[in-house]
Amino acid sequence: MPKQSYLAGLIGSGIGPSLSPALHEREADRQGLRLVYRLIDLDPLGMPPEAVGDLVRAARDLGFDGLNITHPCKQLVLEHLDALAPQAEVLGAVNTVVFEDGRAVGHNTDVTGFAASFARGLPDAPLERVVQLGAGGAGAAVAHALLTLGAGHVTVVDALPDRAAALAGALNRAFGEGRAAAAPPDRQARLLAQADGIVHATPTGMAAHPGLPLPAGLLHPGLWVAEVVYRPLETELLRTARALGCATLDGGGMAAFQAADAFRLFTGREPDAPRMLADLTELAGAVGAPH
Amino acid sequence: MPKQSYLAGLIGSGIGPSLSPALHEREADRQGLRLVYRLIDLDPLGMPPEAVGDLVRAARDLGFDGLNITHPCKQLVLEHLDALAPQAEVLGAVNTVVFEDGRAVGHNTDVTGFAASFARGLPDAPLERVVQLGAGGAGAAVAHALLTLGAGHVTVVDALPDRAAALAGALNRAFGEGRAAAAPPDRQARLLAQADGIVHATPTGMAAHPGLPLPAGLLHPGLWVAEVVYRPLETELLRTARALGCATLDGGGMAAFQAADAFRLFTGREPDAPRMLADLTELAGAVGAPH
Repeated sequence: MPKQSYLAGLIGSGIGPSLSPALHEREADRQGLRLVYRLIDLDPLGMPPEAVGDLVRAARDLGFDGLNITHPCKQLVLEHLDALAPQAEVLGAVNTVVFEDGRAVGHNTDVTGFAASFARGLPDAPLERVVQLGAGGAGAAVAHALLTLGAGHVTVVDALPDRAAALAGALNRAFGEGRAAAAPPDRQARLLAQADGIVHATPTGMAAHPGLPLPAGLLHPGLWVAEVVYRPLETELLRTARALGCATLDGGGMAAFQAADAFRLFTGREPDAPRMLADLTELAGAVGAPH
Repeated sequence: MPKQSYLAGLIGSGIGPSLSPALHEREADRQGLRLVYRLIDLDPLGMPPEAVGDLVRAARDLGFDGLNITHPCKQLVLEHLDALAPQAEVLGAVNTVVFEDGRAVGHNTDVTGFAASFARGLPDAPLERVVQLGAGGAGAAVAHALLTLGAGHVTVVDALPDRAAALAGALNRAFGEGRAAAAPPDRQARLLAQADGIVHATPTGMAAHPGLPLPAGLLHPGLWVAEVVYRPLETELLRTARALGCATLDGGGMAAFQAADAFRLFTGREPDAPRMLADLTELAGAVGAPH
């Protein structure tokens, strides 16, 4: 017998504008499922990021089927889980928790979501040499996805050298020595001249952080450019790259496909991922566009 | 703008067979609302009744719109609430909590539910002298409802004399001296000979406690008989009373109308209470019938 209803939520900080409730609830509606998706925002609750463990346990006790987890809790949640799926274990970060018979199992659909979006949006992109801007949480997920997709080498550029080096080290341990390296921003010019493509995984370009994440002159027509920012969908980076003739991929696919993968984990039903992407595009366009 | 979705639940012990999820979710479906209703059963959680305060706070933090509360937590929950509706305050028991702007407000829809069921099912019943069997939680709610409906006098019969006396005292304080009294079971014969009607509010007659709550010979055709037990809907008491020609009221109305009143509190929408009663009748018939 199918379950009568589903309950999920998102734990994080400053998540009020999240599109996740709408994405999950609309897809459930189309499938004829009762599904409620709640935002559990640490800020109005006055809770520190370390409260994520108590919140996960409470959600399990109160009948949630699963949770999404976002900044600043993706690493903090690890110690509170009973098991990890391979992507989450390799990455050391969880964005999705599923409750199965009282056990909390961590997954990472940022990795699978970016991989699905990239394979769909830039299917023929060469992957021999990739430069990635940003070594934070999104950057780590994207770099793992790139190497999973078969990228030959990923250079991680971050203004924080320790963070870039730590990610490169983790990637080499997970995928084999020589697959990843760290670099400071002042080496971007030479790296990009020789790269096949670039992935942008910093907040620059979001409504609150407008602008370009690198000097426009470093872009050139031979590059493909993939964006992680999805609000707005059309960032200054993508506009600039497209004007040069670069193949581009916006951040909507990663956002929609990570939600689709989480929906599959929460409900056991196959989501209509392209339809969720259409929803994301509509919703992000409506509320995330710059004014 | 209407809310996008609603989340409610029931906290109690041994509530696995509860019909509340189906009653609330079906009514929401008919109204085109996304509503999920979860059972939060202390027994499989291994929690004591005193955990109700933590569970209520967790439900508020995780985005529940409200909760139903049942045995053994209806009194224990009081100290964890920010405000009480009049019925709940007078009764000293809460079966419904609504979260409003972070505040937890207690209500008692057992009182309003029984009153609605009685007014609908036995609209012309004389109420000068009522005998009530059972002074537990359900009994307290029903006695308050009877006096609210204008009953002249209610005699509460219970095998535990202290419990009966406490309820009678509370009723007299709330509704005026002389409106209620307590009596031991050995005075039932004389009381029933002079009564207009009887309300049964003990577990006897439930599938797990079959039988009659009083000697069959004490019933007589001049009595109306109202039942609180609703699983099964047709108890031995009701069968016996109906065979004598008594007007009767089964427990389904109270169960359905307390849910309808809670639905109104949780969602702000007007429930189709007769439709919820039809659901209750169908569901209780399907799963609560004796074998």
